[in-house]
Amino acid sequence: MTADMTTDMIADPSGTRSPGEVLSWSRATLEPALRGAVDTLPGSLRHLVGYHFGWWDERGGPTGSAAGSGKAIRPALVFLASRAVGGDPLAAMPAAVAVELVHNFSLVHDDVMDGDHTRRHRRTVWSVFGVGPAILAGDALVTLAMDVLDGHPATSVLAAAVQDLLSGQSADLEFEDRNDVVLPECVRMAQQKTGALLGCSCAIGASFAGAEPVRVEHLRGFGEQLGLAFQVVDDLLGIWGDPAVTGKPVFSDLENRKKSLPVVAALTSGTPAGELLAERYATADEDLPGLAALIDEAGGRAWAHQQADALVEAALCDLRLADPAPGPAAELTGIADLVTHRDS
Amino acid sequence: MTADMTTDMIADPSGTRSPGEVLSWSRATLEPALRGAVDTLPGSLRHLVGYHFGWWDERGGPTGSAAGSGKAIRPALVFLASRAVGGDPLAAMPAAVAVELVHNFSLVHDDVMDGDHTRRHRRTVWSVFGVGPAILAGDALVTLAMDVLDGHPATSVLAAAVQDLLSGQSADLEFEDRNDVVLPECVRMAQQKTGALLGCSCAIGASFAGAEPVRVEHLRGFGEQLGLAFQVVDDLLGIWGDPAVTGKPVFSDLENRKKSLPVVAALTSGTPAGELLAERYATADEDLPGLAALIDEAGGRAWAHQQADALVEAALCDLRLADPAPGPAAELTGIADLVTHRDS
Repeated sequence: MTADMTTDMIADPSGTRSPGEVLSWSRATLEPALRGAVDTLPGSLRHLVGYHFGWWDERGGPTGSAAGSGKAIRPALVFLASRAVGGDPLAAMPAAVAVELVHNFSLVHDDVMDGDHTRRHRRTVWSVFGVGPAILAGDALVTLAMDVLDGHPATSVLAAAVQDLLSGQSADLEFEDRNDVVLPECVRMAQQKTGALLGCSCAIGASFAGAEPVRVEHLRGFGEQLGLAFQVVDDLLGIWGDPAVTGKPVFSDLENRKKSLPVVAALTSGTPAGELLAERYATADEDLPGLAALIDEAGGRAWAHQQADALVEAALCDLRLADPAPGPAAELTGIADLVTHRDS
Repeated sequence: MTADMTTDMIADPSGTRSPGEVLSWSRATLEPALRGAVDTLPGSLRHLVGYHFGWWDERGGPTGSAAGSGKAIRPALVFLASRAVGGDPLAAMPAAVAVELVHNFSLVHDDVMDGDHTRRHRRTVWSVFGVGPAILAGDALVTLAMDVLDGHPATSVLAAAVQDLLSGQSADLEFEDRNDVVLPECVRMAQQKTGALLGCSCAIGASFAGAEPVRVEHLRGFGEQLGLAFQVVDDLLGIWGDPAVTGKPVFSDLENRKKSLPVVAALTSGTPAGELLAERYATADEDLPGLAALIDEAGGRAWAHQQADALVEAALCDLRLADPAPGPAAELTGIADLVTHRDS
């Protein structure tokens, strides 16, 4: 399969595509519908949202690149889940648009809450336009997400995923002020913050294709566990990721004193390195490489890698139980592999 | 009609109730359903939202008072619009809950954006729990609002009203940094910020009752113009309102240098007082009573009172064109009168 095949030609391929091909196809398939939805927003909000998606610069001029628009993993899961149960992926378009809008809503508000200046190698919305406009842009995105489903019964499934996501973000914020965070609550937070929306993406993709509930639930299980693995890997990248790949400053999560999964695993490891980390994490210590080394020494890094692998294995087990068509199953497996090897 | 009649007895009264009775009934009728909806939120978000509604204190204990829960004018409009076209007001309950959730979503985020510390005589959510939790609480409220409509076609009507509201808030923020705001754009901002949701309340109340489109649109027109009148009065109260009534500090809008309607009317009046006001409004001048006196002298206060009266007259014209049942029509007229005489 070559990159210059048209979107239509690869919309229903006979063979199995690589994860990169699937994501490119998903992005290309999604973009007109996503832009169409964003175009319905009032002018000032459309401007902010289009800036966030990387479609135009801060003055509204074209950027000439899609570098800022993200990987669109969630829409890919919607399309593939729909195909996995025998549906036409394009019939699930509203669901694909909705999950991508929700994801980007959460990014815009997250950046405000975390005070992050950089996202996808560009300045964040709040850092360009201010906190108020960024809050409104996020509000517009989540409202639009609920609206594009146009009364489909999956609206309540999406709403539940949004509430889980918010609950996870709320726990994430709360953890910053606490020194007694334990691993199970940290895992729960990650399940809500990331697992819920990836699970929802698979579930509503299958729902739009009219799949029976048991298959929908197994695909949701696949997505939820994949989402948790994704968050574990994201947490690893937040410490050891290459800024050229992540689009964020090096050690950014350590600077913000995030209680991310590898950090909490290290803090609660009972090792001398974990105890030293706990002491230094509670202070304004700016030796970020030193903190990263302690997390590694306390076993936080190894634990996270092991968890990610185990979660993907469990996700693939749920995928098999959903009895998917072979082509989409292979492609979902490819996506799962990609998600957990973003640092390679 | 006495205050100790039960909610059921006054749910379908034979006579016309006073605006105060209508609002009390509306609040009492709404509250169980509103609490039921909020109870579906994840714990941490439910806590923040319940604090905002005045149901419990910052630690989650009961407040023993409903002082903080607001007047619930929007749900009253939903119920009355439904009755005006011959519907059962209780059948429109999801719409009443939804508009109240949207309104409170906008208040929680507005307080963050404006940095306001006080709302309904209590500390604002962000000032008690922090900016991040307040953003999440608002996000949860707007998502819940879209969800409670449960796929009803009115969902898109509500979404459009939310986008208008956000667009109005965006213009409101933008105006703070501009010295060339003219009256028409300021009116447009107020139409979006307040008129859209009051119009939507009337429209979806009538829609839930199955009214034909022309009656829905006239009721929307009634609500939109009433909403604009409401905003004009709110702007007057933001300058000359009694803090004991408004629940906000005296002159708070002047301290924030809001480009509210009476302010812009004064700034663009072409009078010497208007020019002096323009000079002083652009500085950190802290003589707030002096600024208020200049707005009055430049005719901003008189203009706003006159506008409010004219808008209510136009709203009542649309109400008549909706061919409402006499009882609800009289009660909607009473609400219109109340809205524009909150300072008396």
